[in-house]
Amino acid sequence: MTNPSLLILPGDGIGPEVMAEVRKVIDWFGANGGPVFDVSEDLVGGCAYDAHGTPLHDDTMARAQEVDAVLLGAVGGPKYDSLDFSLKPERGLLRLRKEMDLYANLRPAQCFDALADFSSLKTEVVSGLDIMIVRELTSGVYFGEPRGIIEEGNERVGVNTQRYTESEIDRVARSAFELAMRRGKRLCSMEKANVMESGVLWREVVTQVGKDYPEVELSHMYADAGAMQLTRWPKQFDVIVTDNLFGDLLSDLAAMLTGSLGMLPSASLGAPMANGRPKALYEPVHGSAPDIAGQGKANPIACILSFAMALRYSFDRGEDAARVERAVETVLADGLRTADLLGEEGKAPVSTSEMGDAIVAAL
Amino acid sequence: MTNPSLLILPGDGIGPEVMAEVRKVIDWFGANGGPVFDVSEDLVGGCAYDAHGTPLHDDTMARAQEVDAVLLGAVGGPKYDSLDFSLKPERGLLRLRKEMDLYANLRPAQCFDALADFSSLKTEVVSGLDIMIVRELTSGVYFGEPRGIIEEGNERVGVNTQRYTESEIDRVARSAFELAMRRGKRLCSMEKANVMESGVLWREVVTQVGKDYPEVELSHMYADAGAMQLTRWPKQFDVIVTDNLFGDLLSDLAAMLTGSLGMLPSASLGAPMANGRPKALYEPVHGSAPDIAGQGKANPIACILSFAMALRYSFDRGEDAARVERAVETVLADGLRTADLLGEEGKAPVSTSEMGDAIVAAL
Ligand SMILES: CC(C)[C@H](C(=O)O)[C@@H](O)C(=O)O
Ligand SMILES: CC(C)[C@H](C(=O)O)[C@@H](O)C(=O)O
Repeated sequence: MTNPSLLILPGDGIGPEVMAEVRKVIDWFGANGGPVFDVSEDLVGGCAYDAHGTPLHDDTMARAQEVDAVLLGAVGGPKYDSLDFSLKPERGLLRLRKEMDLYANLRPAQCFDALADFSSLKTEVVSGLDIMIVRELTSGVYFGEPRGIIEEGNERVGVNTQRYTESEIDRVARSAFELAMRRGKRLCSMEKANVMESGVLWREVVTQVGKDYPEVELSHMYADAGAMQLTRWPKQFDVIVTDNLFGDLLSDLAAMLTGSLGMLPSASLGAPMANGRPKALYEPVHGSAPDIAGQGKANPIACILSFAMALRYSFDRGEDAARVERAVETVLADGLRTADLLGEEGKAPVSTSEMGDAIVAAL
Repeated sequence: MTNPSLLILPGDGIGPEVMAEVRKVIDWFGANGGPVFDVSEDLVGGCAYDAHGTPLHDDTMARAQEVDAVLLGAVGGPKYDSLDFSLKPERGLLRLRKEMDLYANLRPAQCFDALADFSSLKTEVVSGLDIMIVRELTSGVYFGEPRGIIEEGNERVGVNTQRYTESEIDRVARSAFELAMRRGKRLCSMEKANVMESGVLWREVVTQVGKDYPEVELSHMYADAGAMQLTRWPKQFDVIVTDNLFGDLLSDLAAMLTGSLGMLPSASLGAPMANGRPKALYEPVHGSAPDIAGQGKANPIACILSFAMALRYSFDRGEDAARVERAVETVLADGLRTADLLGEEGKAPVSTSEMGDAIVAAL
């Protein structure tokens, strides 16, 4: 049997720095009887544009389709702000999501005990928080046609199309129900069915899928009320399922509740490949943070935990994943903090690579 | 000169209860040398459907176009959940917004000192918070065509259209800049220009309008980052301008930050009428809360403060508005709390009408 393959796309900004720490973790497993990966590396985002004039080269896209899992750092930066829409770094990431058909984006929002004080929310509101947002990732207003800036009369009009087919809703709802079955068996679906017909269909299909999961307690909430309830008392939720755009805002909001954005991983999963593994891309929830790039200040934990999610969801290595997660908890309990995890206190932060080394040592 | 005219639409759920308290405040002004209003009352939402088979009768719509200002309670309730989309209570409210062309929805998110502890956020994060969200209210995905649930192949597809013309963006941006000039002179515009062309145009037009307001410091933020930053450190903002759908989520989020949803008013303003007053509708940010309707538990303050906004924005009665706002602060400082403003403490709540009476007494 050949080794499982990993394509690493560090991307822009702090992407390469945090990915370097993930490499240490991957190497540790290779050297210590864990899984050995065939690792290749390539460009995505602004750096791909700099090299090839496109945010994702066709060869890279083809390679992403072949490997067992893709690990991505982050894309984007002010340097690329004036680029044409179709050439922006984000288009590279969106092309990966769309062409790999990664319809289920899993975004855990977990509050690490050692960091609960760091949230802007009261400690009792967030301590022990553990929710999972399942965001539809390949459709909706991100990809719907027609789109663009058109001329109409003597002015321009910006147009995008929100579009969901029944089968698109069905498959992401199933992913969410499956996750709920393995967790607290509660699922809340969010849309704006009071205003948007796409939300009406969403609610109907999710309700229908729910009949196949009688053990899961299903509820529905308008997305604006969802934003409120996430802020008021997030622990009321177990799994949340929502569309691409609402999921973008709500999962970022949920991430910020935990106070530790630099800690949060994500998995984007598609249909099973011939080998039974799902198409998969793993990336931290945080962005490319160009303001601190190259200074050794970035927190590599979100990216390392994204690799842990890969171990769990792509390689059926739940125990190895848990080992990584425990190592992260250990270094946090020991008081290690990168700059983003320090409040007013006068403690000295550790660097990106010191954090990575400490996690490897804790493995 | 005839008296200024007010159309009162109490609506559903707790709407009628909270509006009854507003009537007391209106009457107090009439009896104490303040403005005297020509008040009429009518139906909107579920109650209009019950009476007329439509959530907004044409006569009511016509009346709303004629009066100097409309005051609305809330619409909606589970009783109407199974109604056809076009008959839902919300369509009544949306028709008012659209046909009166109320493009600028002003949603202050203010934290009342006496209630800062009640927020789920840390007191230092929200105390003294005073931001203003300007939400575009007559366009975007709420109204864009095509829309609906269509058949395609052998499945159904839910479709909505996000659409913004240059002039729609221009006029709401101007409202936001004008407000910023009268406040802290900082404006942050939020969209998803990295993903949506409508956001690209939005950013471009807002930037262009900004040239007419060189004193206002303009910034741009992606809406997902906006949701995060509102949660992390809301005091960084002064005025925020955003589209209809993002504004729906972000203003509800901002409202919840203050911990006092039952306290927050809103104004929806359109173009000036022949008499120079803007077309205007005032309503609380909270919903119809069917679960507590008819029990005297509702907090009338948001609706009373919406009337204060009417005094300020429609009737140029800034001092009378401030008088109402001070009366609210007084009763809060005296410790009066409706049920929604009580935490775990064993204090007895006051009823809706006790709160209204106390505010009138404080006037
Ligand atoms: C970078 C951007 C295109 C992306 C999105 O909007 O989906 C990001 O915000 C995310 O949530 O992964
Ligand atoms: C009731 C509903 C149609 C409305 C909206 O979505 O605009 C409400 O949420 C609001 O924010 O005023």
